Amino acid sequence: MNSFGRLFRTQLFGESHGPYIGLVIDGCPPGIPLSEDDFLADLGRRKAGARGTTPRKEDDLPQIISGCYKAYTCGTPLTILFANKNVRPGDYAHLASIPRPGHADLVAQQRFGGFNDPRGGGHFSGRLTLALVAGGVVAKKILSGIDISAKLIQAGGQKDIDLAVEQALSDGDSIGGVVECRANNIPAGWGEPFFDSAESVISHLAFSVPAIKGIEFGSGFQAAAMKGSEHNDPIINKKGETASNNSGGITGGLTNSNELVFRVAVKPTSSIAKKQKSLNMETGKMANLTIKGRHDACIALRVPVVIEAITAIALADFKLLSEAFGGATVKT
Amino acid sequence: MNSFGRLFRTQLFGESHGPYIGLVIDGCPPGIPLSEDDFLADLGRRKAGARGTTPRKEDDLPQIISGCYKAYTCGTPLTILFANKNVRPGDYAHLASIPRPGHADLVAQQRFGGFNDPRGGGHFSGRLTLALVAGGVVAKKILSGIDISAKLIQAGGQKDIDLAVEQALSDGDSIGGVVECRANNIPAGWGEPFFDSAESVISHLAFSVPAIKGIEFGSGFQAAAMKGSEHNDPIINKKGETASNNSGGITGGLTNSNELVFRVAVKPTSSIAKKQKSLNMETGKMANLTIKGRHDACIALRVPVVIEAITAIALADFKLLSEAFGGATVKT
Amino acid sequence: MNSFGRLFRTQLFGESHGPYIGLVIDGCPPGIPLSEDDFLADLGRRKAGARGTTPRKEDDLPQIISGCYKAYTCGTPLTILFANKNVRPGDYAHLASIPRPGHADLVAQQRFGGFNDPRGGGHFSGRLTLALVAGGVVAKKILSGIDISAKLIQAGGQKDIDLAVEQALSDGDSIGGVVECRANNIPAGWGEPFFDSAESVISHLAFSVPAIKGIEFGSGFQAAAMKGSEHNDPIINKKGETASNNSGGITGGLTNSNELVFRVAVKPTSSIAKKQKSLNMETGKMANLTIKGRHDACIALRVPVVIEAITAIALADFKLLSEAFGGATVKT
Amino acid sequence: MNSFGRLFRTQLFGESHGPYIGLVIDGCPPGIPLSEDDFLADLGRRKAGARGTTPRKEDDLPQIISGCYKAYTCGTPLTILFANKNVRPGDYAHLASIPRPGHADLVAQQRFGGFNDPRGGGHFSGRLTLALVAGGVVAKKILSGIDISAKLIQAGGQKDIDLAVEQALSDGDSIGGVVECRANNIPAGWGEPFFDSAESVISHLAFSVPAIKGIEFGSGFQAAAMKGSEHNDPIINKKGETASNNSGGITGGLTNSNELVFRVAVKPTSSIAKKQKSLNMETGKMANLTIKGRHDACIALRVPVVIEAITAIALADFKLLSEAFGGATVKT
Repeated sequence: MNSFGRLFRTQLFGESHGPYIGLVIDGCPPGIPLSEDDFLADLGRRKAGARGTTPRKEDDLPQIISGCYKAYTCGTPLTILFANKNVRPGDYAHLASIPRPGHADLVAQQRFGGFNDPRGGGHFSGRLTLALVAGGVVAKKILSGIDISAKLIQAGGQKDIDLAVEQALSDGDSIGGVVECRANNIPAGWGEPFFDSAESVISHLAFSVPAIKGIEFGSGFQAAAMKGSEHNDPIINKKGETASNNSGGITGGLTNSNELVFRVAVKPTSSIAKKQKSLNMETGKMANLTIKGRHDACIALRVPVVIEAITAIALADFKLLSEAFGGATVKT
Repeated sequence: MNSFGRLFRTQLFGESHGPYIGLVIDGCPPGIPLSEDDFLADLGRRKAGARGTTPRKEDDLPQIISGCYKAYTCGTPLTILFANKNVRPGDYAHLASIPRPGHADLVAQQRFGGFNDPRGGGHFSGRLTLALVAGGVVAKKILSGIDISAKLIQAGGQKDIDLAVEQALSDGDSIGGVVECRANNIPAGWGEPFFDSAESVISHLAFSVPAIKGIEFGSGFQAAAMKGSEHNDPIINKKGETASNNSGGITGGLTNSNELVFRVAVKPTSSIAKKQKSLNMETGKMANLTIKGRHDACIALRVPVVIEAITAIALADFKLLSEAFGGATVKT
Repeated sequence: MNSFGRLFRTQLFGESHGPYIGLVIDGCPPGIPLSEDDFLADLGRRKAGARGTTPRKEDDLPQIISGCYKAYTCGTPLTILFANKNVRPGDYAHLASIPRPGHADLVAQQRFGGFNDPRGGGHFSGRLTLALVAGGVVAKKILSGIDISAKLIQAGGQKDIDLAVEQALSDGDSIGGVVECRANNIPAGWGEPFFDSAESVISHLAFSVPAIKGIEFGSGFQAAAMKGSEHNDPIINKKGETASNNSGGITGGLTNSNELVFRVAVKPTSSIAKKQKSLNMETGKMANLTIKGRHDACIALRVPVVIEAITAIALADFKLLSEAFGGATVKT
Repeated sequence: MNSFGRLFRTQLFGESHGPYIGLVIDGCPPGIPLSEDDFLADLGRRKAGARGTTPRKEDDLPQIISGCYKAYTCGTPLTILFANKNVRPGDYAHLASIPRPGHADLVAQQRFGGFNDPRGGGHFSGRLTLALVAGGVVAKKILSGIDISAKLIQAGGQKDIDLAVEQALSDGDSIGGVVECRANNIPAGWGEPFFDSAESVISHLAFSVPAIKGIEFGSGFQAAAMKGSEHNDPIINKKGETASNNSGGITGGLTNSNELVFRVAVKPTSSIAKKQKSLNMETGKMANLTIKGRHDACIALRVPVVIEAITAIALADFKLLSEAFGGATVKT
């Protein structure tokens, strides 16, 4: 399934070199002011162009084709398209025989019996994150009053991002990074005790973003090395605010009114200019592989806005769910 | 929602000090040999009793009350109950006024408008993981040929688990840990490119386990500090096996025929013998809190079998899904 | 799947001659007063005992085993069990070889590969409607202010129900009937334009009740013979009330503030005392079949409360959904 | 929600006078030959043009924008667009103040807080059935070997359809009709005992088609007047074929290997040339209403192919589900 969400439900579609990629949001409340311009700021943050990002450039202009009337959402399915224009199918022709390491070339064939569109990764392309960002723009509007902000805090193991990127570029190599996301003013009580815990839903969406290989909330992996007396966050007021925030804003699967804090690990871009080894599927022998085309030295540079988007998508669904059940928060 | 899964669907229910906790599995195929004895080994591994685990002991004997006939699954909803016997409601009476740090006491009240069952954490209790383990036993039967094995590889920041546990016990404190799970013989192509990536579904289920605060696949957070030329796993045969396994067995959201490897961070048990500070909700002032009752110094000791269970639940669903779509794997 | 509902979600389980049948309601709001006594009136209406109903009698006492604390719903999964006590497995032993006409004996074997529990119809038993009635009791509480009332308006083609039942009894035969359901005070705007139209969801649930073979809303099949000028209901006030009610209270898939009216066709009970023909699966030849056991001459007598229940279940879900999306009704 | 299906999942979107209407099919297996030409025959059957259908004409040419590569489905989300070209927004401008009887004008405002697109019925338009027909074309390909055929068997209460249509046209009125659908070669065992019975799923989809107000399977409402000894279908061979087919091919919620037979009641088109009364929402008084625009005297003429489509959509999902669970049919 390429859809997610219980009330605010996002359906992705499209292939990198097909005519369009896009999304349908089913469950968007009516009456939200929305125009195509509203998407440009976040789409711009995802865009390539900066040092260390791919030279493939697309206009990335959204077309709203349903669910919006006179610049307000209708409450009906909201569909947004992005045309694929800057397409170079020739770059990818040889990949059927030598699958690129780290890419989905081979597993896509295995999963879809060889019927997948191989051009530019097809449906597996990072280009689909455009649709996630667009969904995030709508979700953020539902979450008025809640601030969500993500940034790249480390790349290639270094805190000096620029330095690390320049090094990768000069090596013809790529680097990974760590993105941290923080969100404030989330009411207490969003989430569920087990299967739809706030961590469960956010992580589900975070791992939908290509290249994400880890996630941790609050103290995360460090918590594993802590004592309970250090890790427990003392509650200091009736709202539930705590003196420390090792929990990252989630207790028992529910938001606890403190800042939501989590970090994701972004693996290095799989496409690198350096020569690599992989199997030639036709000969059955190892072969040298040099990947041409246009790629990111540090895809993590473009990830923060995507992580904000998936956070907003998760929280928008929780907000609608909490309203369904009476927004039950104790009146203290 | 307290249910999860698209075809193999698990519904949890119950409160720690109610008459029963349990689960319904809807979507269990017919014809699987199953008796109550089949659960005992895994339930035994979850049980308390070892050094560092709570002295609360329960028989934890499952009762299959539907979906099983003459020791085979019927294909109809499979319901399993666990009676709560060793209950001491008195221990928890005072918690309504002073919420325990790290516990869901306050958020549960906020989420459910004060109508939650506060005894022993109610529905938030770690006791519900019994139901997860039971679901895992059934799922493992569906996955015959696939080996899943999890173990505690670190506690309190140390690799010598026993030493760390003894220290925590003597301190009247608790410690966290890291559990690693590995699974072999998983076919290539299970999962989806975006929302239901293998990482998404496994992490969704992993964060349903109380106390889990982080997850990473393959090289995980280390990948963020690596170069593409180091991280890319060279494909060495047509099946898709790779020379290294930085991907942890998942590429593009799909299993890639290599060993599935992931680690979860378990926070230290929130209940500790040491005196703590928390808010007295009645007086609005900070108060001292000493938690009595029966608790685990290192809950992570009991987590491995639960992580195996959620892995099996995730994979069983993927297996059924792959059969629905023709089990499409390229015949090479 | 044996679960239904988007927010108010009902999961059925159990076999007729297993230890229990029951249900889990996931998505029941917290704070609803609920005790086991609340179920007795509706369960009593479903019960056998009247002329024309089976002499099998069960206490049908519900046991709430989760999701309820101090006589209020907790907001967590609500599980209700009914013990099967008055069981006579011997009656059904011979049915494996000669499937009863009109019953699921053969299709159940085909569907579940022969692993189904054949005793008393197993999971296919009408006894499972106990769980639907229990779900309806909870749903009705969510719908305070809305009246739902169903009755048998025709049996065996006659409006004099008693007369028709006596005739069937004296013939050793069974008869069908028509049940009409009406519900008042439903706000306008519940439902969806297409897939989850109010008719779609109600019919989905109505056909979950064994023996239902038809449903019509408002003028229903008669509408097919009407002219637009006769069928169109003139709107007479801003609330949307209409002079006539051919629509049965639903326009464009949405409730329209008029009385909800629909009728279901109940087929005659398949089990009859009369001798019948069916295939002997062992010999491959036609055989005489005389069904013993305890059966209803007119199962339709017991259906009205079940139809009320499924109506309430459908409406409760719509109510929660409408609250999620702001309960958007125009303030005129 | 405007999506339906568990594995073969259809998402509708679009408004009558927006740029496009369309659908996404998520869960379409890979490797199905598919081109835009494949849709033309069924789309042609739905098209207006015949006596008694609206003079609004559209090309209705589908554009496949994702999920298809080199004329085969990829297994990824399949998106199909239909451009709205022949649009006359002016016809509908006055409807905001005087809602048309039988139409969704008022409930749409109530449901969506006045933010719905009122032009041509917006998302409520019968034009959305284009997307259903397109979904049906894909579903039929999945069901190779199964024949589905629907026809109009009655209009305006008469079996002579043409006569009835001419009468309606000369009256400036509209008429309803009854459509019967038959499907052959369906294996036994598709469906579920309760919530997802074959009748439940088919009726859910049938009531998604605008103007449908009743459905009956097999003998349907006539069964309510029958005796068990008449209605029971004697099983005559091991496959489960029966001498009569009062069940309409479904027993206990499951297909039983006999012909699937059901009928739907189509109400008369709500838009008629005749003068009608309705409320003027601005004055609060009753007003005369004459509907201009282009409409069908007998929309039922165009319904058969839509009913075939929803039947195929229901059966395609059941087929995939049956494959997931081993296609368990007893080997006799």
